[in-house]
Amino acid sequence: MSYVTHLECAKCRHTYSSSEVYNLCACGGPLLVRYDLGRVKAAVTKEALAGRVASMWRYREFLPVEDDSNIVSLGEGMTPLLKTPRLGKAIGIEDLWVKDEGMNPTGTFKSRGAATGMSKVKEFGLKTVAMPTAGNAGGAWSAYAARAGVEMVVVMPVDAPAITMKECYAYGARTYLVKGLISDAGKIVGKAVKKYGYFDASTLKEPYRIEGKKTMGLEILEQFGWEVPDAILYPTGGGVGLIGIWKALDELEEMGWIGSKRPKLISVQAKGCMPIVKAWNEGKEASEFFQGAHTLAGGVRVPKALGDFIVLKACRETGGTAIAVSDEDILKGTFLASRDEGMFICPEGGAAVAAAQQLRQSGFLGAHERVVILNTGSGLKYPEIIDVDLPILEIDEEI
Amino acid sequence: MSYVTHLECAKCRHTYSSSEVYNLCACGGPLLVRYDLGRVKAAVTKEALAGRVASMWRYREFLPVEDDSNIVSLGEGMTPLLKTPRLGKAIGIEDLWVKDEGMNPTGTFKSRGAATGMSKVKEFGLKTVAMPTAGNAGGAWSAYAARAGVEMVVVMPVDAPAITMKECYAYGARTYLVKGLISDAGKIVGKAVKKYGYFDASTLKEPYRIEGKKTMGLEILEQFGWEVPDAILYPTGGGVGLIGIWKALDELEEMGWIGSKRPKLISVQAKGCMPIVKAWNEGKEASEFFQGAHTLAGGVRVPKALGDFIVLKACRETGGTAIAVSDEDILKGTFLASRDEGMFICPEGGAAVAAAQQLRQSGFLGAHERVVILNTGSGLKYPEIIDVDLPILEIDEEI
Repeated sequence: MSYVTHLECAKCRHTYSSSEVYNLCACGGPLLVRYDLGRVKAAVTKEALAGRVASMWRYREFLPVEDDSNIVSLGEGMTPLLKTPRLGKAIGIEDLWVKDEGMNPTGTFKSRGAATGMSKVKEFGLKTVAMPTAGNAGGAWSAYAARAGVEMVVVMPVDAPAITMKECYAYGARTYLVKGLISDAGKIVGKAVKKYGYFDASTLKEPYRIEGKKTMGLEILEQFGWEVPDAILYPTGGGVGLIGIWKALDELEEMGWIGSKRPKLISVQAKGCMPIVKAWNEGKEASEFFQGAHTLAGGVRVPKALGDFIVLKACRETGGTAIAVSDEDILKGTFLASRDEGMFICPEGGAAVAAAQQLRQSGFLGAHERVVILNTGSGLKYPEIIDVDLPILEIDEEI
Repeated sequence: MSYVTHLECAKCRHTYSSSEVYNLCACGGPLLVRYDLGRVKAAVTKEALAGRVASMWRYREFLPVEDDSNIVSLGEGMTPLLKTPRLGKAIGIEDLWVKDEGMNPTGTFKSRGAATGMSKVKEFGLKTVAMPTAGNAGGAWSAYAARAGVEMVVVMPVDAPAITMKECYAYGARTYLVKGLISDAGKIVGKAVKKYGYFDASTLKEPYRIEGKKTMGLEILEQFGWEVPDAILYPTGGGVGLIGIWKALDELEEMGWIGSKRPKLISVQAKGCMPIVKAWNEGKEASEFFQGAHTLAGGVRVPKALGDFIVLKACRETGGTAIAVSDEDILKGTFLASRDEGMFICPEGGAAVAAAQQLRQSGFLGAHERVVILNTGSGLKYPEIIDVDLPILEIDEEI
């Protein structure tokens, strides 16, 4: 059983039953899962968590699955939160930490959302799930669909990373490429959903992936002994993780596990695709479609996010900010982490490193603040950003 | 402080002080780390482990580092041990489990050995470490060297996987390619070790990586509630992991945490490189150099392993076996795991899947036995084994 009470629209606050299948609210807003947190509090203690499974399912009471037999898991979550002193020194933040989401199944944080999303698909008895993807979400959802025995249909741009196409194929998903952008893939999925009755698992069009992403916030807090850090930098494409972390903190406060302090939530984008940063700079409550999006950090190449208004609100209400960095700085940030700390982070993580450095230089982040960089995935999924030209020896040569 | 008492040669039983730097025994045998297990038993209980960090360092008392400040960690270990019912059904073993080592830093089990090895390098104050590698070990050691601030020199065959070259480069290792095999890389490293005084970290030429690999055995036991499974299938290149698991079980029995039951330890190789299987079939105690080694599972392309005699002994004494599978079956095994369970395993893991299937068919493994397949790494590191040819849509097309 779960402690879910209902679904609530993030925009108009209209409520829906959690025992039926919904995508968006009638108003077009994304739906959030609401719990009876008083009962969650009565059911679990901080101490009880300590001995539990080393996956995000240690937070069982915070998650929306009714029957344990519907949980679809590959061991996602409880990723390392590592102190990074050398990187911290390089960028002038002495209490710097990296949450390494590359150590999830499928190599990215997308696994968390896919785990809760696919668990609910199984619980609702849905047969076929469809989604457009830039790559990593498609890989994750295809993996969890295979684990669940559910049919998966994925549409991705023809220039998506080759490794993510291979993943979807290996997981047995019906995978299509489109000569266009993720928005074009979305249109094809939309038509197929109408035509065949597939369940639409596009970002924020289903309510449950946020709940999986939320566990990143729960873990950061548990790993810090329930002390709230001063800032979290989050590379923002769709922004679901940032929304999830914000939601986790609100739920923990309502339960009395933490106080009212919040980390400054910082939305990091690339200069080549910065709709949320543009809206932030203009003091707007929502973003506009960003024309001509391009950046090597594919995960943040999202020209218009459905949850943009929630991301902007979270940054505003926590005293955070939104910042865009150049592709050149993204690459530098990526290599800083690998050379200084042995962490082969993804370019999106590199963007957050670069942003931390710039916000330290501007004084927005203090030298002694506890700052967390969220690395959303493994560099292994982005081999194309690294060019090597290594010395080649004959067998009888010496170094 | 640690509970290490001394080092002991696995071949001639000669002992060495653990406070000095050693590579091999004078007789050429690899050195094993020995502990005062009575004191370990007094220092830790099964119950105390439950609340500890979700990494292999939860087994601190079983590990050889003297001073905690020398621990070099990226959060390795405590990987998922997943029940795989659909895969189990496909191959006829109902209680089948996969230990997924792909969810380590650098994407393979090599991180465990690199973590203990590099921690001791730091503890001994060594400045430069050199090693030959087929790819994954080089990536792992380079990562931990970067984390430790130690200089790393890596030599790998020019046909090693591109992703591992990129990793070494990203971690800032001095990386050389050689127009030859890993044995040629070994010769170049050997010369450099003599010439410059680098520490030689070739497989089993340093005593500490086994201790990291040992934690796979500790985890499997803890994850099964200290019930010993019936069989473990291990893809065998150098064989360090199998040796480590065997050592872990012996230490646990000496402490009284488990009884005398052992899982059948099963060494899995590829038909194109099967020195240990050949020795097993011929009833020999050690293997011979396997000429013309070739297989797509690069991690088991080791023509002669320094620890071959220990692997053979472990398989013999536990009632296990050694088996070689074809590259075709390796690929089939890999896809079985991804399609049936959403696990994108490496080809070495695929070899173990194929071996389990064949040993079930031959009756060596029973239908109701509890069998563990050790998947040594993530499929993300082997994109070249998957060819995809996906349908390409125009933007106005429909599925």
